[in-house]
Amino acid sequence: MKKITNNVQHIIRDMLQGFQFENNDRVCYNSKHNIIYRKDLAQQNVAIISGGGSGHEPADFGYVGEGMLSISINGNIFVPPTPEQILAAIRLTDKKQAVLLIIKNFQADVQNFLSAESLAKEEGRSIDHVIVNDDVSVEDAVSYSKRKRGVAGTILVHKILGAAAAEGYSLQQLKNLGSSVIKNLHTLGVALSPANNPNQTEPSFTLNDNEVYYGVGIHGEKGYRKEEFCSSEKLAIELINKLKSLYRWKQGDKFAILINGLGATPLMEQYIFANDIRRLMQLENIDVRFVKVGTHLTSIDMKGISISLLKIEDPEWEKWLKSDVTVSSW
Amino acid sequence: MKKITNNVQHIIRDMLQGFQFENNDRVCYNSKHNIIYRKDLAQQNVAIISGGGSGHEPADFGYVGEGMLSISINGNIFVPPTPEQILAAIRLTDKKQAVLLIIKNFQADVQNFLSAESLAKEEGRSIDHVIVNDDVSVEDAVSYSKRKRGVAGTILVHKILGAAAAEGYSLQQLKNLGSSVIKNLHTLGVALSPANNPNQTEPSFTLNDNEVYYGVGIHGEKGYRKEEFCSSEKLAIELINKLKSLYRWKQGDKFAILINGLGATPLMEQYIFANDIRRLMQLENIDVRFVKVGTHLTSIDMKGISISLLKIEDPEWEKWLKSDVTVSSW
Repeated sequence: MKKITNNVQHIIRDMLQGFQFENNDRVCYNSKHNIIYRKDLAQQNVAIISGGGSGHEPADFGYVGEGMLSISINGNIFVPPTPEQILAAIRLTDKKQAVLLIIKNFQADVQNFLSAESLAKEEGRSIDHVIVNDDVSVEDAVSYSKRKRGVAGTILVHKILGAAAAEGYSLQQLKNLGSSVIKNLHTLGVALSPANNPNQTEPSFTLNDNEVYYGVGIHGEKGYRKEEFCSSEKLAIELINKLKSLYRWKQGDKFAILINGLGATPLMEQYIFANDIRRLMQLENIDVRFVKVGTHLTSIDMKGISISLLKIEDPEWEKWLKSDVTVSSW
Repeated sequence: MKKITNNVQHIIRDMLQGFQFENNDRVCYNSKHNIIYRKDLAQQNVAIISGGGSGHEPADFGYVGEGMLSISINGNIFVPPTPEQILAAIRLTDKKQAVLLIIKNFQADVQNFLSAESLAKEEGRSIDHVIVNDDVSVEDAVSYSKRKRGVAGTILVHKILGAAAAEGYSLQQLKNLGSSVIKNLHTLGVALSPANNPNQTEPSFTLNDNEVYYGVGIHGEKGYRKEEFCSSEKLAIELINKLKSLYRWKQGDKFAILINGLGATPLMEQYIFANDIRRLMQLENIDVRFVKVGTHLTSIDMKGISISLLKIEDPEWEKWLKSDVTVSSW
């Protein structure tokens, strides 16, 4: 598998230097810890920090900037940043600033972020976190809550919390807001092909030429069903039906939608899928207040798509989703 | 080849309806002629119109909005819009508005746009055009000027002319500005895999597993060399050396750079390539004033990358490249 890379040992550094080259008027790159951060970091009462393993670009560095993230910490491919990296990121903020960590719900991510959080507390920092667990692909009821991973819906959390932080929300207010948003946020995806990890010789799953795989994770975690591909509409119906059973929505409920390409999915296909979602939501008489389509949180070069729904419980959420940002990838 | 589509006959309509679903507060969709246009179309003295065959998403509809295009006209896949479609787009503008067409230099595109232009003139419209021919991949000196196609650099033309139009530039000023920009704009690309056109059973070229193809066109037109893939750095050196010979640049010359994924190229790889370009430009002591990296003008799901260089001859160009826009894909 040809990839536009050089020495695989330097992939993360090369990529982040490239990102800094594009955005050098706005962001800094800390090469020791692979951290991307806003030049005007001290501007907010509360710094919003996120991150995770690489291979999910543009997440999360593409969301660093005014109105979204203060800092992104970038681990190796599919490997979360270490507590040391995360602590180094926290230390970049002003001691008078509070810090909110946005953590995706993967066991190793949660461990490392919470470990850094407790070290930062020992240093006298005012710090807290929210854990995003929007992925609802796991069918087994027993292991369900444990295995709800943090996936593309995280970008909507970045957007809403980033906008509220820019407005001057306190740490406690941001934590409460984040928790409310996350409770109303669910994501489901489908893969048409697996990701090719440059550190591995084999993809994490295989599909026949005509097969798709529902519910597969962004690191290739097991999905819930393989079946023959039929059409975009069929994919949309499957995913919306599953999401509908979780929300038990009623006519006129307000929703935001994120449609997300998983890495190698052309925009043409993303918009065709978006149109199928539009028709289904119209049939359900859902009041769609916000739609975003694009390649936002990926699994390297996986071909596939996910849909995140957010039930809008507060008109402020819609305002924050629509507010201006200065970031590379929103 | 699985594609997230429905009936192939309705691909363009489905896609544009999906786009409108995302942007319904800002843009309108004319389904008879597959035109996407700004709701606030009458705001400018001069409407900027572009378009072409589909399969190049987000070009051009993703650039419709404040500060860039007024209207995009969308043909079928790899087929330019008809003169009727283009004329219908022109007629959407106010009769008091002038119109500038931004045309990519493909024979059928130029024919259809100029034919619509002359029909619009007969209707008393004040209208003119620029033709973008940034692709410098063709080695044969004789056929050179004839075959310089319009490719990713077109997006920089959209940005600069869109910003100048928003500032109130006249039709003549915009035409002159466009001509100066185009003279200083060159693009070269390399493919790692061909596009899969849903209307064709076979891709337009084949590559061995380890091969890349320099200079291939966005519709799969013949490139200038196939060779074994080595590294991102090697691709960057090849493309920059060729571009350097055209510019004969000297230390301190100011440049803007667009690095463009051709459809299925993950951002990770685009940024790694951007970093190689950074190093080469630094070695040449080029003063890089603006960098943009992303999937901007594609060839369906082709894997590959292009680089567009614009020699900045006027500080206004840099200002316009950096000015704010309200579009989906800048």
